[in-house]
Amino acid sequence: MFEPSETLAASGKWMLPDGVEDLLPHQAASIERLRRAVLDLYASWGYQLVVPPMIEFLDSLLTGVGSDLELQTFKVTDQLSGRMLGIRADMTPQVARIDAHQSMAGGVDSSNQRNRYCYVGSVLKTRMESVLATRTPTQSGCELYGEASIAGDIEVLSMMLEVLDRAGLPSVHVDLAHVGFIRKVMQLAGFDPKMDSKLLDVLNRRAVAELDVIATAASDPQLAALIKALPSLGGPASVLEDARELCHFDHELLAAISEIETLGQAVTSRYPSANIRYDLCELRGLNYHTGLMFAAYTGDYGQAIGYGGRYDNIGLAFGSRRPATGFSIDLKVLHKLAVGHVPSERSAILAPADDSPSLWQYIHTLRKTEKVIQLLPGQGATDYATVCDRQIVAADEPDKWQLMPLLAL
Amino acid sequence: MFEPSETLAASGKWMLPDGVEDLLPHQAASIERLRRAVLDLYASWGYQLVVPPMIEFLDSLLTGVGSDLELQTFKVTDQLSGRMLGIRADMTPQVARIDAHQSMAGGVDSSNQRNRYCYVGSVLKTRMESVLATRTPTQSGCELYGEASIAGDIEVLSMMLEVLDRAGLPSVHVDLAHVGFIRKVMQLAGFDPKMDSKLLDVLNRRAVAELDVIATAASDPQLAALIKALPSLGGPASVLEDARELCHFDHELLAAISEIETLGQAVTSRYPSANIRYDLCELRGLNYHTGLMFAAYTGDYGQAIGYGGRYDNIGLAFGSRRPATGFSIDLKVLHKLAVGHVPSERSAILAPADDSPSLWQYIHTLRKTEKVIQLLPGQGATDYATVCDRQIVAADEPDKWQLMPLLAL
Repeated sequence: MFEPSETLAASGKWMLPDGVEDLLPHQAASIERLRRAVLDLYASWGYQLVVPPMIEFLDSLLTGVGSDLELQTFKVTDQLSGRMLGIRADMTPQVARIDAHQSMAGGVDSSNQRNRYCYVGSVLKTRMESVLATRTPTQSGCELYGEASIAGDIEVLSMMLEVLDRAGLPSVHVDLAHVGFIRKVMQLAGFDPKMDSKLLDVLNRRAVAELDVIATAASDPQLAALIKALPSLGGPASVLEDARELCHFDHELLAAISEIETLGQAVTSRYPSANIRYDLCELRGLNYHTGLMFAAYTGDYGQAIGYGGRYDNIGLAFGSRRPATGFSIDLKVLHKLAVGHVPSERSAILAPADDSPSLWQYIHTLRKTEKVIQLLPGQGATDYATVCDRQIVAADEPDKWQLMPLLAL
Repeated sequence: MFEPSETLAASGKWMLPDGVEDLLPHQAASIERLRRAVLDLYASWGYQLVVPPMIEFLDSLLTGVGSDLELQTFKVTDQLSGRMLGIRADMTPQVARIDAHQSMAGGVDSSNQRNRYCYVGSVLKTRMESVLATRTPTQSGCELYGEASIAGDIEVLSMMLEVLDRAGLPSVHVDLAHVGFIRKVMQLAGFDPKMDSKLLDVLNRRAVAELDVIATAASDPQLAALIKALPSLGGPASVLEDARELCHFDHELLAAISEIETLGQAVTSRYPSANIRYDLCELRGLNYHTGLMFAAYTGDYGQAIGYGGRYDNIGLAFGSRRPATGFSIDLKVLHKLAVGHVPSERSAILAPADDSPSLWQYIHTLRKTEKVIQLLPGQGATDYATVCDRQIVAADEPDKWQLMPLLAL
């Protein structure tokens, strides 16, 4: 029985909440191919798949992360324990929990063991981060635990760029940053917390005039000059030279600059087509990250398509103080930006609606390598003319079958 | 920093709720292989993947299903719309919604169009169905919409058995049932609703003495005899003959027997090793199913490992009254029962911690077909002796690399 679609839309029964969507066949198949390619890539680097659950105790899910994630997390009460549960809005804390548990399994301290984990799965967010964003991203990523040196950051950033490369993204820009730099500047300035907040706010707004006023509060003229110059310390490799001149008075600032340079040089050598930009005044991630940070952008798409960096000691609350670095990507976004670069599905074979055992055997064998759609009783071949390019027809001998072209009508 | 694991367990931070679990590397990789094999199988039958969201409006999620599912569904409030949302506890109603929408897309009535959909994903349940059950099954299945004939049921049951076959399950028992049979018996009896409930309760408990009392309330002695015999109508194909003798007075009862027999014969011819059992007194699914039903069992495992059947008109609430049949399987359970039959992972190659571009190129090429784990600075090869069977070593010429066996230590 058919009813006009207006009535149905009005009933709202098949509407989905804002920012929540189905993946329909064409898109679902294409994202599935991307999912497999990405997981195969991670595996080829020795990253092991883990699958944390959709739901767990809220305090585990929010361990070591900022309050942003708490607002993003749907909460329900567990009927069994009476405790609060959260639906994951981010899988990284879950993987950190797994690493903390695994690195101490059996009561043995293997805290210097390197663990490489990868994951893919749906996450849920209470709100959309921007107007067209989804509340159900398909988050995927890799995390490397136990490696404190920059070799770890180089490995995970290389993998992230490899994913973007495999997805066929046309032009990729990579922003490199280091939260250690701005943290050290604040430490040297020795401002009170209120002044610190003001500095961050001013830097965030790139309000140069206000920044000059704050800079004068720094006792050391070299530090004052550096603070004034902070907004200019973003751009190509040459900004690292500018920064070095401004920072010669502090070896920790110089070390942060060297780290970011080393990461940039490694990426440039491995992915010469990636466009690298350095930013010593990047403030995002300041509450969460602990060292090098990176983000990749493409074309006009305003948000980062992949991002990551160092977040040492996230596992501390789980009892395991470990170096950690990694990245994450939303496969739905990646798929949208990569559309047209993913190979399309192969064509199918149409089988007649005949229940003879010989036809069943013929189809059964074909299905090992081909897609075979069997007509249902009374159904005509025209329904499948756009999907199938071949059909099974009876051969001259009884109980023998053969393939023939199926011409588009 | 290492702390004894007792302290950590006591802190509870890494405990998971009852019935909620991580899949750790070995298990996750193995379930991923099973997931791919199953999706590839569905695709080879022309079933199209759809990915409905984890969350949607509660009334959509619970449309056309019994109250059991409502109790199983976690509920949260949508901050954006103020409406009640549910975390899916079953994906079938979601796929029905997609079919209803797709079959009427663009306001065109294509309600006799056959749509074949498949899906795989996490579902969440508020409670465990049995003591050792999970609250986060990985549900997978196929749904065929638009086909009213038994050809549809034969197709979906064949696919379900194909999945069990691919997973390498040793011995499979298939129970076939038909809710139309017991419904027709109740209609012929014309009992009041209270008596109907009593009949179902007595049948459920197989309380033969009480059943005899109820049977005497049936005015027709042939019907009374049939009601008394109901608990005996479960077993091998011979019970269908017994049933035919008891039902000769009603052609609809005979038609239901013929349908179940046709399904059984088709399965026997296609899967001769499957052990078929018929049950005309099966009551599960009475509130949801509308015709043929099936369930598969293996070994000592008490629950069905896969089940399904006809559920025509589930889409009515979405405006689309369509024939529907399908099945679903929990991949976690299937994996557990199939363990040992899934091929294990190939071995990996260990690369030295050397950042020369020639080594990077050598590794990059190998990773197209192999798993290569690169040592991090200062790390020894012994960490990977159980994972890698080969290693990359410098060749005699500069910037040349070669593979050598890595001996277990």
